Amino acid sequence: MEKHKSNLCIGLDPLVEKIPEFLSEYEDSILEFNKRVIEATQDVVCAYKLNTAFYEVLGEKAWSTYAETIARIPDDVYVIADCKRSDIGNSAKHYAETFFDYFEVDAVTVNPYMGYDSVEPFLNYHDKDVFVLVLTSNQGAQDFQLLELGGKKFYEVVLERISQWNKEGNIGAVVGATKVEQLSHIRDCHPQIPLLIPGIGAQGGSIEQVAEIASRNGAPVVVNVGRDIIFAGYDEEFVDKVREKAFYYSALLKK
Amino acid sequence: MEKHKSNLCIGLDPLVEKIPEFLSEYEDSILEFNKRVIEATQDVVCAYKLNTAFYEVLGEKAWSTYAETIARIPDDVYVIADCKRSDIGNSAKHYAETFFDYFEVDAVTVNPYMGYDSVEPFLNYHDKDVFVLVLTSNQGAQDFQLLELGGKKFYEVVLERISQWNKEGNIGAVVGATKVEQLSHIRDCHPQIPLLIPGIGAQGGSIEQVAEIASRNGAPVVVNVGRDIIFAGYDEEFVDKVREKAFYYSALLKK
Repeated sequence: MEKHKSNLCIGLDPLVEKIPEFLSEYEDSILEFNKRVIEATQDVVCAYKLNTAFYEVLGEKAWSTYAETIARIPDDVYVIADCKRSDIGNSAKHYAETFFDYFEVDAVTVNPYMGYDSVEPFLNYHDKDVFVLVLTSNQGAQDFQLLELGGKKFYEVVLERISQWNKEGNIGAVVGATKVEQLSHIRDCHPQIPLLIPGIGAQGGSIEQVAEIASRNGAPVVVNVGRDIIFAGYDEEFVDKVREKAFYYSALLKK
Repeated sequence: MEKHKSNLCIGLDPLVEKIPEFLSEYEDSILEFNKRVIEATQDVVCAYKLNTAFYEVLGEKAWSTYAETIARIPDDVYVIADCKRSDIGNSAKHYAETFFDYFEVDAVTVNPYMGYDSVEPFLNYHDKDVFVLVLTSNQGAQDFQLLELGGKKFYEVVLERISQWNKEGNIGAVVGATKVEQLSHIRDCHPQIPLLIPGIGAQGGSIEQVAEIASRNGAPVVVNVGRDIIFAGYDEEFVDKVREKAFYYSALLKK
């Protein structure tokens, strides 16, 4: 963030049917696409976030394309595996090994529903970070996260609980940009918790409001934009459009 | 379940360090192990459950070992991908494609925290089943699932909600065997919801109590046993021990 003066994270969530057609001649067109997006934006961002959903669907190539993409990201750029994993400790331990030891990412996202011992194996990596889903950007957030629980919303209980779990200072929270009122409140009540904010662009969150919240004093805020940047162009010069969009968002976040 | 007169599901969650040593001579020792366990137990079970945590950690071979294991399971045995996925609809759709179209499993497990639209892409496969985490077998279940929410426990709210989502009759609930009191209550209050019950054996749930609950009238109940069956033997004859244990659990469940 300091080196590139940016808190923009780009979501590397490619889709075969949405990447420029000319890339189809490459053996691994998704990897080629990612490589070009990374080359065009690596000095504009603080991080890349790779959602496993878009790689697992590649079938046999899933893990190699995921690993090869990560290998193309410069060492000074932070890498987040957006895997939203959750399992009992004995299983979660293997997820932690997969993402932290095998893919060597800097951070993961996890789902809190199964409680502390499902998150602990990730937290045991003290030099890695764990972003816990708190208030997500989708409509379904209202089903459980926004329910009242003894005068508080459920996501507030999750937030309090993860603050208690944060003994090594390696926990952050995922809060969607589409919930701007709560996002503002979370930032003011828990300024010590780093935030990962998705939901900008295609999902409808306002970058200006998020920029204002991110500018307040507190722990680092990483703002993710995916589709609106990576699918900005469709021809051989698509990377110019991608770079332009990355600059656009990065600049807006500085205001 | 009818053909094999069994509601035993075996958790195919192998670990390189726990499988018999002589298998290490095989190129894919995990696949070889799974193949032998499947051959030894396929007429004793109703289902196999494959937790993705134990395959993803295999690195490059992850998805091929997962797919090849599934290919070894006879068509008349139900296959559950225990992936506990959760994401916004746009991403969850790709997880659904991965597990239902690519791996062609019969059912998945999903995490409810992100609400309806995170589960919907899975439910849209009407001939497939979706087991939603309701009350898990681990200690951490108390952190959120067992919290009070307006006179009800949080997991009860989840259960009510998923009953409403169940328009196509393809939702089930994951309830851990270690929470036997609540399991009994869930079975009686929501007999129409199929149950997937993990937590027997290594995790400490009682097979006798679960067997009694499973015998009550209602939708199908699938009881998973993992480590206690698959790691029953350590030499070249390990499959005999595995088969013996599978019979043991299957018989207990019939009582």
